[in-house]
Amino acid sequence: MQLFVFPGACSFASHVLINELDLPAELIIVKLGTPNSPLLQINPLGRVPTLKLDDGTVITENTAILPYLADLVPNTPLFAPAGTSERAQIQSWIGYLNSEIHAACFRAINRPHRYINDEAQYPAVQAKGLALLTENLQPIIAHLQKREWLVGERFTIADAYLGVFLSWLPRIGEKYIVDERLIEYHKAYESRESVKRARAFEQLELNR
Amino acid sequence: MQLFVFPGACSFASHVLINELDLPAELIIVKLGTPNSPLLQINPLGRVPTLKLDDGTVITENTAILPYLADLVPNTPLFAPAGTSERAQIQSWIGYLNSEIHAACFRAINRPHRYINDEAQYPAVQAKGLALLTENLQPIIAHLQKREWLVGERFTIADAYLGVFLSWLPRIGEKYIVDERLIEYHKAYESRESVKRARAFEQLELNR
Repeated sequence: MQLFVFPGACSFASHVLINELDLPAELIIVKLGTPNSPLLQINPLGRVPTLKLDDGTVITENTAILPYLADLVPNTPLFAPAGTSERAQIQSWIGYLNSEIHAACFRAINRPHRYINDEAQYPAVQAKGLALLTENLQPIIAHLQKREWLVGERFTIADAYLGVFLSWLPRIGEKYIVDERLIEYHKAYESRESVKRARAFEQLELNR
Repeated sequence: MQLFVFPGACSFASHVLINELDLPAELIIVKLGTPNSPLLQINPLGRVPTLKLDDGTVITENTAILPYLADLVPNTPLFAPAGTSERAQIQSWIGYLNSEIHAACFRAINRPHRYINDEAQYPAVQAKGLALLTENLQPIIAHLQKREWLVGERFTIADAYLGVFLSWLPRIGEKYIVDERLIEYHKAYESRESVKRARAFEQLELNR
């Protein structure tokens, strides 16, 4: 199978998971918005992550790719069996990160043109996105006060996803949201072998 | 178990699924933003759907509740087994609806204050949300040209979710996005017994 990623984008979570599971996947680095990209031939929306299976099936969205990849190797600590409430809690965090952190906040900050046409209003949309990000991170911070990872005291696919967004915080520059617990959590994330290998492969230098 | 819903909100998808599976769940109708709501005692964010299991575990987000409920009754046509690409495709549509239709579009249309502070700019944010909605519905419309339902020629939990957003389109009023295929699909959705029972229970009169 092939996983299409853009360096440092949210596709990084799926990349980390492939390393965690040592899956035989070919990583294909693409640039977003490039005409004639091989990605556009299989996913007209040109979004990452995109996973192409050996039978040609194309799967998009981290919310689908992370559970799918984890289920390829049943009973690892990275996920939980179907029908368990632990699995539901892992998927709940993934859903929250997908809509309330990525779409609602980082997109407003990084791509204000998706929420308003008037360029003069971009700073206002970005400021609102940042305020909402501060607010929407609070349940995560509160939850992590008594836990090392999001669910079940072990690194799961929900953590593979959360770590990506935390690595985006420093890019916000002087507006960087400082929280000691998140910094500590992010340090633990970046020190995993799977993450270090993915960073090296995507040739990312983190702005820390 | 107890499912907390707000009439006609996105929690409707989980309500429909409970009817499809005939699960023994107590439906609790709440009003959003009400102080002292029983919902706030178990979910400080006060969001719906919220599912409370018999052991007290609380699960939030349709992206988690829909798969969890479907897995309680294995091997129904509503979902697909763990590890299959069909399951991943069902989850991919749920993820897309969650972030690209709900958070990115309907929230901008229905709650522009979530994306900008200046009230004078609300119409601009709403207009952008509507334009983006038209754009983000296109992949769904194209996909449904050759299919009755989203995945596998049968009603799945992805359809339970999509139908909710289609029922919101008429609320947009004169800006209603007219597409013959979506109207036909929505009619099939609303004519299911599970949907009719859920509408009656939530005492919804659709604005059609």
